[in-house]
Amino acid sequence: MSNSLPLFDDIAAAARRINPFIHKTPVLRSRNLNQLCKTDLFFKCENFQRMGAFKMRGAMNAVLQLSQLEQQQGVATHSSGNFAQALSLAAQILNLRAYIVMPSNSSEVKKRAVLSYGAEIIECEPTLAAREKTLNEVVARTGARFIHPYNDIDVILGNSTAGMELFVETADLDFILAPVGGGGLLSGTALAAHHLSPECKIIGCEPFGADDAYRSLETGEIQPSINPQTIADGLRTSLGEINFPIIKQLVHKIIRVEEDEIVSAMRLVWERMKIIIEPSSAVAFAAIIREKELFENSRTGLILSGGNVDLDHLPF
Amino acid sequence: MSNSLPLFDDIAAAARRINPFIHKTPVLRSRNLNQLCKTDLFFKCENFQRMGAFKMRGAMNAVLQLSQLEQQQGVATHSSGNFAQALSLAAQILNLRAYIVMPSNSSEVKKRAVLSYGAEIIECEPTLAAREKTLNEVVARTGARFIHPYNDIDVILGNSTAGMELFVETADLDFILAPVGGGGLLSGTALAAHHLSPECKIIGCEPFGADDAYRSLETGEIQPSINPQTIADGLRTSLGEINFPIIKQLVHKIIRVEEDEIVSAMRLVWERMKIIIEPSSAVAFAAIIREKELFENSRTGLILSGGNVDLDHLPF
Repeated sequence: MSNSLPLFDDIAAAARRINPFIHKTPVLRSRNLNQLCKTDLFFKCENFQRMGAFKMRGAMNAVLQLSQLEQQQGVATHSSGNFAQALSLAAQILNLRAYIVMPSNSSEVKKRAVLSYGAEIIECEPTLAAREKTLNEVVARTGARFIHPYNDIDVILGNSTAGMELFVETADLDFILAPVGGGGLLSGTALAAHHLSPECKIIGCEPFGADDAYRSLETGEIQPSINPQTIADGLRTSLGEINFPIIKQLVHKIIRVEEDEIVSAMRLVWERMKIIIEPSSAVAFAAIIREKELFENSRTGLILSGGNVDLDHLPF
Repeated sequence: MSNSLPLFDDIAAAARRINPFIHKTPVLRSRNLNQLCKTDLFFKCENFQRMGAFKMRGAMNAVLQLSQLEQQQGVATHSSGNFAQALSLAAQILNLRAYIVMPSNSSEVKKRAVLSYGAEIIECEPTLAAREKTLNEVVARTGARFIHPYNDIDVILGNSTAGMELFVETADLDFILAPVGGGGLLSGTALAAHHLSPECKIIGCEPFGADDAYRSLETGEIQPSINPQTIADGLRTSLGEINFPIIKQLVHKIIRVEEDEIVSAMRLVWERMKIIIEPSSAVAFAAIIREKELFENSRTGLILSGGNVDLDHLPF
């Protein structure tokens, strides 16, 4: 099965392709949190990425992989979260049209962000069926190319460049943790580790209230995320058929955390590191606190996936 | 008068002295805020400094300048803010006693922070007279050395290392802005600019509700800060006799800002840069937004002085 995995060349090519358009984000450390966790922590700050999340990497790579003819027709996706903003910004940078299908109950903050990047919003009922139907209509009407938020190999390879940068900057990591929602970040990170740091154990992190990745790995089959209940709004989606085999092959384990653990991990990072991370990112740090013994005296990397929060509705 | 200014050697010596104990903080940039302000902004992130503020630099330098005999007696100060934490941490690093006189109405968050660095808190009535009287009693009882939060040349020289790092990393700044409360940061920054980038204009920033530095420069005499009203709690103090002559000689102008401008500048930095700054730091960015034309098409540095906020009491 191993020969079905993308090569390191594919990741390196994605990096070359997107580098002019993304930020190389810093790896921050915290003496304070190291002492608390008794481990050496390396925070890859994708909250400082353009539009505020790692999603920019995958979106940019996918759009750049389209032919000129395809690009002229524009791009489309359905997302109420960071991928909506990422695809909008990637399209804006290349002067392309972007059509974003968003559920009608999406927050005003998120709609404003998408509009600020010049995309067109098409509202739909807040169900998966309505999202897909509306998207199909948009694609039929406009000829735009649908870019899936995570179940797309170019999106996954774009995402893997965050892990690549971390491994290049930080040698000898024992663990790397990433949150898992649809699996686009976790599979991309695992691919980077597989090629650059094969001894490093890859751990996915998710809320108990949306533990479909845990259940999928337990059963060996993709288990849908049904009625997920979590503050980590980026982690409510189900795994995709393209990233699940990568996760199955390369990921060491999944750690699940409680909602109150997510909120207090988020607050701890805000207070001690003075950086803003969203709940989905806090899930990975909460996993380290929850399973402290596993990480003691190790070198542990975390992908802080994003920093888009609504300051008017903080959980503390 | 110029010959009374400290030499660059004095700043460099302070830097050598404190470097093992402080963080060299990053200079962050924001494409987004550059576009908004039509200027090239360079944010010196002292909110990432140990204990969360530039005050660590001055406190560390002052404590390291004491003789071994003086160090053994411990150090004392009165402060309800960041200097209390800074002196406590500096003392803890060197294994010295620290006595902190704090007004009885100081927030629990601040008291806990000071205690977490192993210092002893001595409470007093919330008046300047009570603070000074209590401090004198502490010094008489313990033999501890009083370190003034800002009116002390070693504190000023320690603070100047933040500006020094910024000028070394970032050439050709046209402006550098720093908030002004007691004047320890502004005078230190001005000294660094004077030696490293003499063409750079130094601007102090303060709230209209605590504009004693503005009034002092207008009249040529130190004007006390009487009943200051501002959310920027680090900027309520009056200038000192040691830093006022430096400010008078080297500072180009003072920009004053309204309270709502401080809050919205703070929110803008949180949202766009994903970093946590305290209201006193937001004052400098608010000044750029208020006097946009002055800074257009320039290279402008800002000292983000600190990031210690109470997340339970945010102004938004």
